[in-house]
Amino acid sequence: MRTDFCEQLGIEFPIFAFTHCRDVAAAVSNAGGLGVLGAVGFTAGQLEVELAWLDEHVNGIYGVDLVIPSKYEGKGVEGLSPEQLEKQLAQMVPQGHRDFAAKLLDDHGVPPLPDGEHHNELLGWTATTAAPQVEVILRHPKAKLVANALGTPPADVVAKIQESGRVIGALCGSVKHALAHKEAGLDFVVCQGTEGGGHCGEISSLVLWPQVVEAIGDMPLLAAGGIGNGAQVAAALAMGAQGAWTGSLWLTVEEANVPPAQRDTYLSASSHDTVRSRSWTGKPCRMLRNDWTDAWEAEGTPDPLPMPLQMMVALDGVKRGHRYPEAAKDVNFNPVGQVVGMMDRVERSADVVNRLVEEYVTACDRLAKLNS
Amino acid sequence: MRTDFCEQLGIEFPIFAFTHCRDVAAAVSNAGGLGVLGAVGFTAGQLEVELAWLDEHVNGIYGVDLVIPSKYEGKGVEGLSPEQLEKQLAQMVPQGHRDFAAKLLDDHGVPPLPDGEHHNELLGWTATTAAPQVEVILRHPKAKLVANALGTPPADVVAKIQESGRVIGALCGSVKHALAHKEAGLDFVVCQGTEGGGHCGEISSLVLWPQVVEAIGDMPLLAAGGIGNGAQVAAALAMGAQGAWTGSLWLTVEEANVPPAQRDTYLSASSHDTVRSRSWTGKPCRMLRNDWTDAWEAEGTPDPLPMPLQMMVALDGVKRGHRYPEAAKDVNFNPVGQVVGMMDRVERSADVVNRLVEEYVTACDRLAKLNS
Repeated sequence: MRTDFCEQLGIEFPIFAFTHCRDVAAAVSNAGGLGVLGAVGFTAGQLEVELAWLDEHVNGIYGVDLVIPSKYEGKGVEGLSPEQLEKQLAQMVPQGHRDFAAKLLDDHGVPPLPDGEHHNELLGWTATTAAPQVEVILRHPKAKLVANALGTPPADVVAKIQESGRVIGALCGSVKHALAHKEAGLDFVVCQGTEGGGHCGEISSLVLWPQVVEAIGDMPLLAAGGIGNGAQVAAALAMGAQGAWTGSLWLTVEEANVPPAQRDTYLSASSHDTVRSRSWTGKPCRMLRNDWTDAWEAEGTPDPLPMPLQMMVALDGVKRGHRYPEAAKDVNFNPVGQVVGMMDRVERSADVVNRLVEEYVTACDRLAKLNS
Repeated sequence: MRTDFCEQLGIEFPIFAFTHCRDVAAAVSNAGGLGVLGAVGFTAGQLEVELAWLDEHVNGIYGVDLVIPSKYEGKGVEGLSPEQLEKQLAQMVPQGHRDFAAKLLDDHGVPPLPDGEHHNELLGWTATTAAPQVEVILRHPKAKLVANALGTPPADVVAKIQESGRVIGALCGSVKHALAHKEAGLDFVVCQGTEGGGHCGEISSLVLWPQVVEAIGDMPLLAAGGIGNGAQVAAALAMGAQGAWTGSLWLTVEEANVPPAQRDTYLSASSHDTVRSRSWTGKPCRMLRNDWTDAWEAEGTPDPLPMPLQMMVALDGVKRGHRYPEAAKDVNFNPVGQVVGMMDRVERSADVVNRLVEEYVTACDRLAKLNS
């Protein structure tokens, strides 16, 4: 199971766990995989705290996932601080969108956030706001792998990361994206099929992975989208992947900071319950279908705005959903892949890693027997 | 590579080739796989001719694929001949739909069929019209495998096929469908992910196959949807499939009776060029996106009718497209899966079988090396 990319990183299993929860990231890294912390929701100050905690709790190394989209409103605006950029972008959000979102939550009985609980709206969804995050990463020696979620990262970011002895890659949903990443000199790609949770394209993993493997040659490909058991990991490696990049799986582990009411929503969902929707982030993103996603697709309602404006509209819903998950159960943001239909119980993160390895071995044995 | 289902059937490779062309079916069976002839386009008389030809040209065995949908307009109508049923259904087709379809073809300069070239419109898309096809199959001893494309076949059909020493299975796009097939006593399922060509559901192969394998236990699963090379076959078998059911691949082989202009359309398409559309058959079916599929989805145009009424509207387009493929290149019916992006050259059918086997071995070796 030890691929060349494992050797390069010095990890035991080619199992990469994308998560927004540091406890999960640490548990996976300590179990022989590699935990990757999603940074988009953190300010630079908060990210500093998270990575300091990870440095302390991870024996080996871990990764960080940034979101610097290739295309977004406000791209190329120079010389603004994150706060100034946020202010400028906020002026581009129609009040009707904010009202529509607020009414949806109010109609479902989701309480407003307590007075005075201010939150910045822009988060890390731009080069401007992600730049301070990069500086934080560079201060943490165990943060050895960086991935960017929505396009080839800017050249200066690539250079800084690589010059510091780290590896940097990016997600892709098409051969074209993968070739752009290779052209930019990235160290690896995370190739995600349409069944994956979060932002995804239209091509299925089974069809996409082999085409990208062929297109990028020696560059390591981590297979993402639809992986929930070890047989699927074996399938990915058989098709030439150097690792499995998993995300959905870690939403329902014991260590995850997902509220129990939301976790139960994931555990009870089937593979038929997801939809690709622009209603939270402005770009097509796979999530559980619910009253929120239906409402934004209904006739006569506002069209979702481009990234990052839609997230500025929707962030209040994310925050209220996180705080009041019971009330928000039909209008919450539940990003997850079709593999949600295979997630039916709460396990410890280390047990998930071990299960993936065991199932992988079983699948390989099955193949070996067929061929003997 | 020899699975239990191969042993049961007495075939060398678990490679099943769905095709509408007898030459392809024969070539695959004779190369060690199993050719499966799609019967829906043939009258009973025509099918008799095709199967007699196959009996003569196939060394071992072959299969036949029927289309008896679980749900369709006219289901349950008793005591009508195929001609009477067609007449009754024809009265349910709004003239506006026929006019819209005819205008689309006319506007693209696709000539009408020559005068007097009558064709029946209903084909095999109902239990009534498929029943005579079943009788034909029973007269051909080498037709050892029967599959039904759109639901669990009627109990009397299952009984007749099985009592004659043949095996019968059916396609499925969900765990629920697969369990219904098992409950009905079928011998195998063909489990097709959303990336597959023709009628398909919404769940990707990678996510669907393992769930169905687990649900149906010992019942053989043939993996369909997205398979175009041997590494994907290895992936399917690693996940517990007993064979690979392929369709798109055979549209561009040397022996296929696909007109060159249409074949070129397939060869030049990418994985991004397909769409699930109801515009030809009335049920969601994956095909190349073109002016026809766009037109039926545009606002203010007729909604596609339920099966089999939409096909009665569209069949004139199928026939005209087959006869005048150059003129019809932007309005032709091109059913194919996302794997079309991997189809870039014309090969002999036997060479495709051999290539799949070689690539399968390479993929298994890759895994074995990782584990040594």
